[in-house]
Amino acid sequence: METGNSPQTTRIGWIGTGVMGRWMCQHLMNAGHPATVYNRSRDKAQPLIDAGARWADSPKQVAEAADVVFAIVGYPADVREVFLGAEGVLAGARPGSILVDMTTSEPSLAVEIEAAARAKGCLALDAPVSGGDVGAKNATLSIMVGGQREAFDRVLPLFQCMGKTIVHQGPAGSGQHTKMVNQILIASTMISLCEGLLYAYKAGLNLETVLQSVSGGAAGSKSLEIYGPRILARNFEPGFYVEHFIKDMGIALREAERLNLCLPGLALAKQLYEAVRAQGYGRKGTQALLLALENISNVRR
Amino acid sequence: METGNSPQTTRIGWIGTGVMGRWMCQHLMNAGHPATVYNRSRDKAQPLIDAGARWADSPKQVAEAADVVFAIVGYPADVREVFLGAEGVLAGARPGSILVDMTTSEPSLAVEIEAAARAKGCLALDAPVSGGDVGAKNATLSIMVGGQREAFDRVLPLFQCMGKTIVHQGPAGSGQHTKMVNQILIASTMISLCEGLLYAYKAGLNLETVLQSVSGGAAGSKSLEIYGPRILARNFEPGFYVEHFIKDMGIALREAERLNLCLPGLALAKQLYEAVRAQGYGRKGTQALLLALENISNVRR
Repeated sequence: METGNSPQTTRIGWIGTGVMGRWMCQHLMNAGHPATVYNRSRDKAQPLIDAGARWADSPKQVAEAADVVFAIVGYPADVREVFLGAEGVLAGARPGSILVDMTTSEPSLAVEIEAAARAKGCLALDAPVSGGDVGAKNATLSIMVGGQREAFDRVLPLFQCMGKTIVHQGPAGSGQHTKMVNQILIASTMISLCEGLLYAYKAGLNLETVLQSVSGGAAGSKSLEIYGPRILARNFEPGFYVEHFIKDMGIALREAERLNLCLPGLALAKQLYEAVRAQGYGRKGTQALLLALENISNVRR
Repeated sequence: METGNSPQTTRIGWIGTGVMGRWMCQHLMNAGHPATVYNRSRDKAQPLIDAGARWADSPKQVAEAADVVFAIVGYPADVREVFLGAEGVLAGARPGSILVDMTTSEPSLAVEIEAAARAKGCLALDAPVSGGDVGAKNATLSIMVGGQREAFDRVLPLFQCMGKTIVHQGPAGSGQHTKMVNQILIASTMISLCEGLLYAYKAGLNLETVLQSVSGGAAGSKSLEIYGPRILARNFEPGFYVEHFIKDMGIALREAERLNLCLPGLALAKQLYEAVRAQGYGRKGTQALLLALENISNVRR
């Protein structure tokens, strides 16, 4: 695998240089790994090109120039095109390459990509992350990895450039399933958070003193810590987009259906976030659920 | 107010010596305050009597012997009887006494008790707590206080014997409202937690490695920290009883209705916990929601 400038470096490919991928690729480059990059809109890749990355015109061309190819793009349809399309990674990957999808996507698609990779003598990992743009920038992501242990072990030094908590969760699809668990945990917690603060407001309480009382105990959560102060400041700018969260919950609900699993809280959360989007807040942060709940109850502030 | 053995001591009354009250009263006695106690079943008060507390035969008699009377009992109906009944605290309280209800109860009842107290020249506080039996034992409770500032200031040194986070939230009822916020925050978070872990199990993941990936990030919560390991160990013994949680959510939903507030997540949580109780788990801990969700989807383990 190590075919770069020194025994410690790996020729990497990077597809998707948005708010997350841009930093993740930069960390790998900072560690000395030569990178070839592709992004749907080239301008977002420019900072990496300026920092020394080679540009390629397609995922296929990225794969031709790299031994480990990472992608972090948008929706499952994008993942499918990037890996399995005519100009996709597998069209260019040589035997022995490792394909790593870090997009939050469908577990079943991860299984499909891994099978296609094996058929070409390659390995594949699904490795979605949590931690957001701040985690990407500070290399403190949690990386949830599915796929063969051998592939995990070989990519681990690269993951360590990008994340802090890196766990092999099992065979192909397990990384995506773990990310779904993560999103399910967040989904109803966001309902709790927004309903609790809305109740506090309507009950005439002082929201800051309420947070003093409740944050440190059993009601405390990372969501409350992150979004409580933003909601108090009426700051609904995106940390994590409503529309991306809807995508993730949709994947989780389809998987749950496939697993014969009734998840009423997740279903409600998805419906409420559909209301958030319908009210025009799809490009706001997930804390904009508060706005939708206010509108539902005709609360005017 | 300070009419005990020394200028620093207060004659206290304590009504309700269960898993919480027993420790809370003990802390006050340890600080040197002479106590008169009452409990519906006397045997549960015996440890405090053995430690030097005086027994009284009714809340009224407790009030006759004390300057500050605390209660922590079960349901709002119990609170009403303890404070407003024929043998209740207000029937025995002298002008200048302070009545403190630490039960999780109705905000509107707290307002009613405070008005009745004022009419007799007394002060009243509603001061429910979070932190459970462990917080009561270790004197680390969060105490959420409603009522007049003057009463709060006078009782504060006593609260400090029992709790760590003690916040005056506003006029009568504000302590109860704040506790409702606390319970609303927990309600849908418990759904998230149990749905997330059930999904993980059905997806064939290793729950321990899943917790490694998700606990430290945005999906983390105190509930996950407390109940995650118990659920993995299939330990459904009560930290907090399902039936008490149902009581609290019922109060919160009635208050929300009064406030013209639609809280779909809280309503769903209450319904799901009704299912937990209907399935025979009312005296289990709130993490038994997992069992109900398993039964709903016919998951056999």
